[in-house]
Amino acid sequence: MSDSGAMKILGISGSLRHGSFNTAALRAAQELAPAGMSIEIFDIATIPLYNEDVKAQGFPPVVQELRARIKAADGLLLATPEYNYSTSGVLKNAIDWASRPPEQPFEGKPIAIMGASPGALGTARAQGHLRHMFIFLDGLLMNRPEVMVNGAAGKFDAEGKLTDQATRDSLAAMLTAFKAWVLRLR
Amino acid sequence: MSDSGAMKILGISGSLRHGSFNTAALRAAQELAPAGMSIEIFDIATIPLYNEDVKAQGFPPVVQELRARIKAADGLLLATPEYNYSTSGVLKNAIDWASRPPEQPFEGKPIAIMGASPGALGTARAQGHLRHMFIFLDGLLMNRPEVMVNGAAGKFDAEGKLTDQATRDSLAAMLTAFKAWVLRLR
Amino acid sequence: MSDSGAMKILGISGSLRHGSFNTAALRAAQELAPAGMSIEIFDIATIPLYNEDVKAQGFPPVVQELRARIKAADGLLLATPEYNYSTSGVLKNAIDWASRPPEQPFEGKPIAIMGASPGALGTARAQGHLRHMFIFLDGLLMNRPEVMVNGAAGKFDAEGKLTDQATRDSLAAMLTAFKAWVLRLR
Amino acid sequence: MSDSGAMKILGISGSLRHGSFNTAALRAAQELAPAGMSIEIFDIATIPLYNEDVKAQGFPPVVQELRARIKAADGLLLATPEYNYSTSGVLKNAIDWASRPPEQPFEGKPIAIMGASPGALGTARAQGHLRHMFIFLDGLLMNRPEVMVNGAAGKFDAEGKLTDQATRDSLAAMLTAFKAWVLRLR
Repeated sequence: MSDSGAMKILGISGSLRHGSFNTAALRAAQELAPAGMSIEIFDIATIPLYNEDVKAQGFPPVVQELRARIKAADGLLLATPEYNYSTSGVLKNAIDWASRPPEQPFEGKPIAIMGASPGALGTARAQGHLRHMFIFLDGLLMNRPEVMVNGAAGKFDAEGKLTDQATRDSLAAMLTAFKAWVLRLR
Repeated sequence: MSDSGAMKILGISGSLRHGSFNTAALRAAQELAPAGMSIEIFDIATIPLYNEDVKAQGFPPVVQELRARIKAADGLLLATPEYNYSTSGVLKNAIDWASRPPEQPFEGKPIAIMGASPGALGTARAQGHLRHMFIFLDGLLMNRPEVMVNGAAGKFDAEGKLTDQATRDSLAAMLTAFKAWVLRLR
Repeated sequence: MSDSGAMKILGISGSLRHGSFNTAALRAAQELAPAGMSIEIFDIATIPLYNEDVKAQGFPPVVQELRARIKAADGLLLATPEYNYSTSGVLKNAIDWASRPPEQPFEGKPIAIMGASPGALGTARAQGHLRHMFIFLDGLLMNRPEVMVNGAAGKFDAEGKLTDQATRDSLAAMLTAFKAWVLRLR
Repeated sequence: MSDSGAMKILGISGSLRHGSFNTAALRAAQELAPAGMSIEIFDIATIPLYNEDVKAQGFPPVVQELRARIKAADGLLLATPEYNYSTSGVLKNAIDWASRPPEQPFEGKPIAIMGASPGALGTARAQGHLRHMFIFLDGLLMNRPEVMVNGAAGKFDAEGKLTDQATRDSLAAMLTAFKAWVLRLR
């Protein structure tokens, strides 16, 4: 953590849509973070498709930046949509790039996962796949509480503000637990 | 199937690397396909990251082409690497784009999966994730035989030709079974 | 299928509780089966824990009976609870016993999966694990429609009758689709 | 931990076979445990099939014993076979029983997973399923190093002693890492 003692969390949304519920949920997390935690959002929209031939020439600047930001963060907060019973290809692609040697930045990093979807199951399956990936990457995922925002269309207003109080409460509770998880693993 | 009776399979590799073992395995499949089956390879290198705002303006031409080719094919042959215990973000992104309504092209489509990796497990976990995706998409996956090419670096030559005879035999057997699977589901 | 042309489906519930929602859902399926389909329920309560040393002496009679019934059936209908993000150990144990060589009875068998749970997600994760198992066993699982009965306590009456009309309709639709799936695979 | 400072680990094998490779691997772990760690093995052979009606009358004595032993342990070491691309029904059944309220004993417990199988993949899929279960149960699984013993028939002698030196080394390394994991989470 920084000298000031503030816990710095890097948030990444798996959806590039301007009105994305997951990006909106990250903004809500910024508001709801407990004292001593700040959350910055990294936009993965300009990361190219992973290609090892490109990587052999060096990481693209945006990937270098992502890797440096992950490395510098005290923890990660991933917000995933569920597409086809898994996380988005967009988020997986960012993880694939960021994870490449040397200095795999997810190793030993505290990670929390959440997700929002218009459907009834709230990204349960996407979160399951994401968690599976971090076994290999040795990310230290918090198990619970889980935040799965279902019926998302009714829980955010037209400006993307999270208005559903129960969801706000569960998100705040998750962030408080995540702060404790990060501290426990220091 | 076409009037000539030939079974047309569309092959997609989840790796963009020029020397990709998975792309090489698809080329081997072209050679080893049983009589009456032809395999064309679709290159997903130019598919952009999925963004629903972009999609709202219409599918990009390369995605239109992919969707049309899937729709026209009698079956799909997916060759996946394993990155971080899952399929590649690149392949997932192509599936995410192709699957968007209207006219989801994977529905009812016979699909075979294979994978090659330098490691010991030969993409077992990546194939598991891919199969999970196609439950939602109602793709009709052949269960067995499975082709998991481990230690791939020793099974292809410098030009990317599959030289390992046991692997060639298992690939040929899988394609023969896939032909029967496609015919069974007509 | 039998000479009379009736399609015989074997139903198995993964919960042994007398008032099990999953067993109750199988009884509802018996009522709602389309014309030409009959469903019998096999009770797995007396199957012992799997032990290969016991198996080496021969299958226990109840396992022999289960294997014979699976083999004779035109298809299987599995109703699974969700315990700890997976199917029940009880159902997995029955599958482990039934699957042992020789003459693995799940091979090529049409299978439909459903599940009921008191919680919000309706066994989505349990069904995912079950489907994964049948890749190895070469069971021919219908992808969709999926039946995931959430909030089960409010959908059955005190006698275990499925009273929720929307669930009855979705179960009937699934059974009709399953009949078509079995016929397609003959 | 006990007053003497020794770390007590409870080992559970998912196979009941007398000559089980997984039980043999646990015995090897007992030998190879680092200084300050002792491993006791709990035999789950007499745990009945889970039935909530039985549980309503109280936990069977063997389940009470299992729950008390889990609660008292500083960590768990699970050795799983792979049956049908998942863990054994026998092990899942023990987890189902042990996990029932009140006082869910897996919560916050450090857990290491390993597995041995005669096949080529060494229980990769079974371990994936087990890990998924402990998200719900809030078990604190060590990610790495993973121990997947493939080709097990050639790595143990007729008395069940682990003779393969590379496997012994990887098991010892895993146990050393697990000791550090348990200490980190205190």
